[in-house]
Amino acid sequence: MAEKIRLAVAGVGNNISALYQGALLYERMIAEGASEKELPGIKRPRIGGITVSDLAFVAAFDVHPNKVGKQLQDAILAEPNNYPRLDVGLPTSGCRVAPGLTEAEAADRSGPGFRRLVDQLRRSNAEVLLYSLPTGLQWAAEAYAWAALEAGVAVVNCTPEVVARSPEIMAAFRRGGVPLVGDDLASHLGTSVVHRALLGLLSERGLTLSSSYQLNFGGNEDFRNLRDRGDSKRQSKLNALAQEGLDTSNVEIIPSAGYVPHLMDHKVAMLNIEGMGWAGTPVSIDLKLKVQDSSNAAGVIIDLVRIAAASRRRGLSGFPAAATRVLKSPPEGHPAYSEAAVQESFRQLDGTAFNGDGSRALADTASHG
Amino acid sequence: MAEKIRLAVAGVGNNISALYQGALLYERMIAEGASEKELPGIKRPRIGGITVSDLAFVAAFDVHPNKVGKQLQDAILAEPNNYPRLDVGLPTSGCRVAPGLTEAEAADRSGPGFRRLVDQLRRSNAEVLLYSLPTGLQWAAEAYAWAALEAGVAVVNCTPEVVARSPEIMAAFRRGGVPLVGDDLASHLGTSVVHRALLGLLSERGLTLSSSYQLNFGGNEDFRNLRDRGDSKRQSKLNALAQEGLDTSNVEIIPSAGYVPHLMDHKVAMLNIEGMGWAGTPVSIDLKLKVQDSSNAAGVIIDLVRIAAASRRRGLSGFPAAATRVLKSPPEGHPAYSEAAVQESFRQLDGTAFNGDGSRALADTASHG
Amino acid sequence: MAEKIRLAVAGVGNNISALYQGALLYERMIAEGASEKELPGIKRPRIGGITVSDLAFVAAFDVHPNKVGKQLQDAILAEPNNYPRLDVGLPTSGCRVAPGLTEAEAADRSGPGFRRLVDQLRRSNAEVLLYSLPTGLQWAAEAYAWAALEAGVAVVNCTPEVVARSPEIMAAFRRGGVPLVGDDLASHLGTSVVHRALLGLLSERGLTLSSSYQLNFGGNEDFRNLRDRGDSKRQSKLNALAQEGLDTSNVEIIPSAGYVPHLMDHKVAMLNIEGMGWAGTPVSIDLKLKVQDSSNAAGVIIDLVRIAAASRRRGLSGFPAAATRVLKSPPEGHPAYSEAAVQESFRQLDGTAFNGDGSRALADTASHG
Amino acid sequence: MAEKIRLAVAGVGNNISALYQGALLYERMIAEGASEKELPGIKRPRIGGITVSDLAFVAAFDVHPNKVGKQLQDAILAEPNNYPRLDVGLPTSGCRVAPGLTEAEAADRSGPGFRRLVDQLRRSNAEVLLYSLPTGLQWAAEAYAWAALEAGVAVVNCTPEVVARSPEIMAAFRRGGVPLVGDDLASHLGTSVVHRALLGLLSERGLTLSSSYQLNFGGNEDFRNLRDRGDSKRQSKLNALAQEGLDTSNVEIIPSAGYVPHLMDHKVAMLNIEGMGWAGTPVSIDLKLKVQDSSNAAGVIIDLVRIAAASRRRGLSGFPAAATRVLKSPPEGHPAYSEAAVQESFRQLDGTAFNGDGSRALADTASHG
Repeated sequence: MAEKIRLAVAGVGNNISALYQGALLYERMIAEGASEKELPGIKRPRIGGITVSDLAFVAAFDVHPNKVGKQLQDAILAEPNNYPRLDVGLPTSGCRVAPGLTEAEAADRSGPGFRRLVDQLRRSNAEVLLYSLPTGLQWAAEAYAWAALEAGVAVVNCTPEVVARSPEIMAAFRRGGVPLVGDDLASHLGTSVVHRALLGLLSERGLTLSSSYQLNFGGNEDFRNLRDRGDSKRQSKLNALAQEGLDTSNVEIIPSAGYVPHLMDHKVAMLNIEGMGWAGTPVSIDLKLKVQDSSNAAGVIIDLVRIAAASRRRGLSGFPAAATRVLKSPPEGHPAYSEAAVQESFRQLDGTAFNGDGSRALADTASHG
Repeated sequence: MAEKIRLAVAGVGNNISALYQGALLYERMIAEGASEKELPGIKRPRIGGITVSDLAFVAAFDVHPNKVGKQLQDAILAEPNNYPRLDVGLPTSGCRVAPGLTEAEAADRSGPGFRRLVDQLRRSNAEVLLYSLPTGLQWAAEAYAWAALEAGVAVVNCTPEVVARSPEIMAAFRRGGVPLVGDDLASHLGTSVVHRALLGLLSERGLTLSSSYQLNFGGNEDFRNLRDRGDSKRQSKLNALAQEGLDTSNVEIIPSAGYVPHLMDHKVAMLNIEGMGWAGTPVSIDLKLKVQDSSNAAGVIIDLVRIAAASRRRGLSGFPAAATRVLKSPPEGHPAYSEAAVQESFRQLDGTAFNGDGSRALADTASHG
Repeated sequence: MAEKIRLAVAGVGNNISALYQGALLYERMIAEGASEKELPGIKRPRIGGITVSDLAFVAAFDVHPNKVGKQLQDAILAEPNNYPRLDVGLPTSGCRVAPGLTEAEAADRSGPGFRRLVDQLRRSNAEVLLYSLPTGLQWAAEAYAWAALEAGVAVVNCTPEVVARSPEIMAAFRRGGVPLVGDDLASHLGTSVVHRALLGLLSERGLTLSSSYQLNFGGNEDFRNLRDRGDSKRQSKLNALAQEGLDTSNVEIIPSAGYVPHLMDHKVAMLNIEGMGWAGTPVSIDLKLKVQDSSNAAGVIIDLVRIAAASRRRGLSGFPAAATRVLKSPPEGHPAYSEAAVQESFRQLDGTAFNGDGSRALADTASHG
Repeated sequence: MAEKIRLAVAGVGNNISALYQGALLYERMIAEGASEKELPGIKRPRIGGITVSDLAFVAAFDVHPNKVGKQLQDAILAEPNNYPRLDVGLPTSGCRVAPGLTEAEAADRSGPGFRRLVDQLRRSNAEVLLYSLPTGLQWAAEAYAWAALEAGVAVVNCTPEVVARSPEIMAAFRRGGVPLVGDDLASHLGTSVVHRALLGLLSERGLTLSSSYQLNFGGNEDFRNLRDRGDSKRQSKLNALAQEGLDTSNVEIIPSAGYVPHLMDHKVAMLNIEGMGWAGTPVSIDLKLKVQDSSNAAGVIIDLVRIAAASRRRGLSGFPAAATRVLKSPPEGHPAYSEAAVQESFRQLDGTAFNGDGSRALADTASHG
């Protein structure tokens, strides 16, 4: 078994609760005799030899008064977090939540706040920093990335903030010999991927799309906050459909149709598709999807942090193509990374690729696709 | 524009009503200025140069007293048919429904009943015989195929009866220089293809399938008759899922959950999928699909009869690989026909393939996949 | 047959389009031989002897440039109206849409704008003014009511603005001998009534409500405008549930979950109810309701305008109890009007009640419940 | 607290598993401090002073080899039972499952099999015999009733077999001074009651029903066995709707649309209602109901056995009107029992009624409605 990933987290929300509890749950399943293939919800039992329970949380940062100063195993259960309490014991982590950067501290990279962050990352011996603050804080995403780079810590950016897509930041990580994974994770089983699969099926079979809508709602902080940011998310989702060649003129997407507190961390999506078959006669599809929203994130984060850690351990820098399929916005856009490049990247991480100089190969992958 | 296909039909059920009315409707749309790309529900506007309205019905056979002796445009509207009356005029077809073969007549290929059928096919100058009697009459499917072969008429078998899969019959068609297309059409947008797409998505994303069910019900004769034959259909659908590598131990399929007369020719399917994501937390999908059942068939039949006619016009015999994707049981099974072979077959039919001897190439396709 | 109701309308939106086209459609059905009992969607074929097609539109007011100056039969089809064009001819109405009151004109009841409105109502010989401007214009609702009173025209207020509930206005209508019907119509088959029926069923059967949500969305102007006003509507819907003794602590209502333009004038509602039965084991209900939103209003408006007209014809003033069941906010609240009072009111309008002095009886009903 | 009901059960299926485990679960909730009002899924915390956990199982009969001879707490968990194992301890009951009557034994009431049954009932000191064998065994239902009567034990018949509706049997129980409760329990929250509520709502609001269907499916023995008996159950459900004055010409009910083993003891129902509102424009309702099937029975059985026990304790005989609302087929049909009679019956059982001679009053209620 591989050494556990030494993981630092910026933002102690539901995603971290899911990741933290889930890793322990899988650890227990394995201890109780489950084979790696039997673990539920796991696509790749190992990446670079690392299993899904090989996580050691060594540093955590947040600004919420319910979380700062708490042991991590307590902070993940503090409100407004509302991911379910899984049926697994939560031993003392030894990791205490430190105060996160303020906007003022982030602006001054030689000031005491920023220097303290770099120092904490260094002293923690973290291999990977997982950035998962609430969406919309571009300043924070950048500051944590620069701090991690200085400390030699690989970064995974779960949010839509521009980090891995920033040519400046990516170049600096390459120069610094540090992996940078992002941006914006694709859900494990998201509404978009289901919607796309069905619209694609209609198109492939030669039926004509008449209209479609998609509504998402839920009970966690994302849905409480999203109504305002709904328009940009709506447009980005429509763009994603349009990029696949689908006519979106009669397609409507409501990223946050409502905040329904008692749904807690569940997300519910309603899809409707109306189409025409032979002789213009109608076909209709109605679908309800219900997921544990933060499990939907953690199921992907577990791959991203393993890719980041395995890259770092192999001395690779920049963007590892292996991460492409579980990201919404990889640095060069999806078409830049062929399936062959993705598979080659996984082989590199697993140590089964044949090129001698992994570092250069990875950089090439990133720049040439 | 290509010459219209001279089409004979065995069985004048809802599928023929959909095909007959739909072809006229598309003809009117084109006459009113619609471009071929604007036709709703059509994947391939032309196959071998033939459009979706290039159909001339030249012979029809049925045994139902409501249909025999009637003009075809009237017979398609006779009970128990219940496909909707589309908004298009139905001019006199000039084609009268002749009495179909009885089981006794079918058994004696030198008897007067069988000879009369061969004679009628010959005199009609039919290019293609479309076999779409109710499911379960293996003797009828074979008899019509042998009669068509003798008359030099290509055959399309819409039913699960074994015709194109019969090595004996296929060999005879090849020797006779006549195309044979079958068996069992895949619906235009069937429950199975939707179910497979969603189960495949779960698997591809690494979620674990917990259980799934699929119920189909409707109001046409298929659903009235299906309850008895439900078990074989259930097993064949489960086999289809299993062949794709899906674990079907907790998957249940009810091909005919009920006969609901007022649904008429609509089919409704209910799908449920329960799965597990990260940490075993649940995901669930509920889907309702509603289609016009016989449009769902006609949207595929229109391709099969064009493939059969174009093959015959080009002097090809045996099974045209182009038909593979819209059949449930092509002669050698799906894996025998690569995407490249299918595309090459379409190019042959369109006259854009480069090999000089179409006939031999087609036979090769069929035998080598 | 009764004389047609001479109807004036303030606001020419989808509701008026539904009412206008529907009345003509029913007229044609009756002319073609349909009995009153066969008319679809009609609870009371006659009220005070008046049928559902006994409508003559004699005046119309609106401020939208697409509508002002147009013949009413054209204005009802002008954007942003998007009620469907029913399959019925629309002969010239002879009624032209006049410019509606501005807020400034409404404020000065002796000014030329207000005087012109009173004059137009008088000259039209209208019996009833139907007020159905967009929600939220209290000043307009009041001004139209005062103008109607001055012109001796009965008023029906379809909106939640306070008109019939205003003691001052109601007293003035009573003194003036004019009927006043309102406020806020209950939909013919609204989401709330379905939600209440199911929650009530759970309660009556002794199951325990765990949680519930209701989402509404659609494609007409109401849904475009509603997101802002959603909070007050949400609270009023929750209050309505609470008044029936239902515990609403885990019930969430989203009056406008989204604006989906291609749904046009359709409204879709999604309901979910989670409960507990014996031993706390779960029961769940998921429901999708789809209605033609403005038909849902017109199906109730047709009763309200007939009640208003019949009241006026019988010399009754104030609020007729017959209107209670199809209003959300009758003057004294629902409990003030017993079923017996409602039935007695209908009998008065039908001329089958036995009390000699209808006027006083009606006033009593209104004041004593 | 009242003395526990001494309960004998004929048939140890899922219903008994639900009843047995549920009673223990409620007992623990109360022991842990829950008030009677907080118990989930309970309409009447007490009937005749008896709580929902006041059950002592003193005798049990079954013919299945997996059950006969086992302790009852083990037998309820034996296949084919598949009610969930609730989260409550199952202490040794001291009640062992005895072999049930065979058809031959039932036919000879002076034979050793029947005599042994009477004897066992007597020796158990049972107050109530709950009859819940699989549907369709009229001979068994009668035999158990006669045996119980001879032993002086009240009977509750959960099945549609004719017992309480049999004038001969009812008269014998009255003469014998023993209560007899049946026939056929109405589910706690059944598909029929939900369907009726929605169809009734449409009718009450004046919308026109176009068509409707109801499909039920599940994974317990009822659904495995029901396909054959589906037709009679379908007709009885349609009759029930028709009796409420609903037009059922376009209503279809499929009592067992399918056996889906992985659903275990869950029942799923799909309802669709299509109607017409104003101007004939469409309204549609789609509903999915999911329940724990045997909890749905146990939630009603708990009332019936308490009613039977309380009746017996008060010396009442024959049919107690209090049972009417949770039965499908009370002796004289539903209309025979007014709401007042039902409430009076409950008051008798609670000892709060004022008539001195409870026995006679009860007999009167039964015979006069």
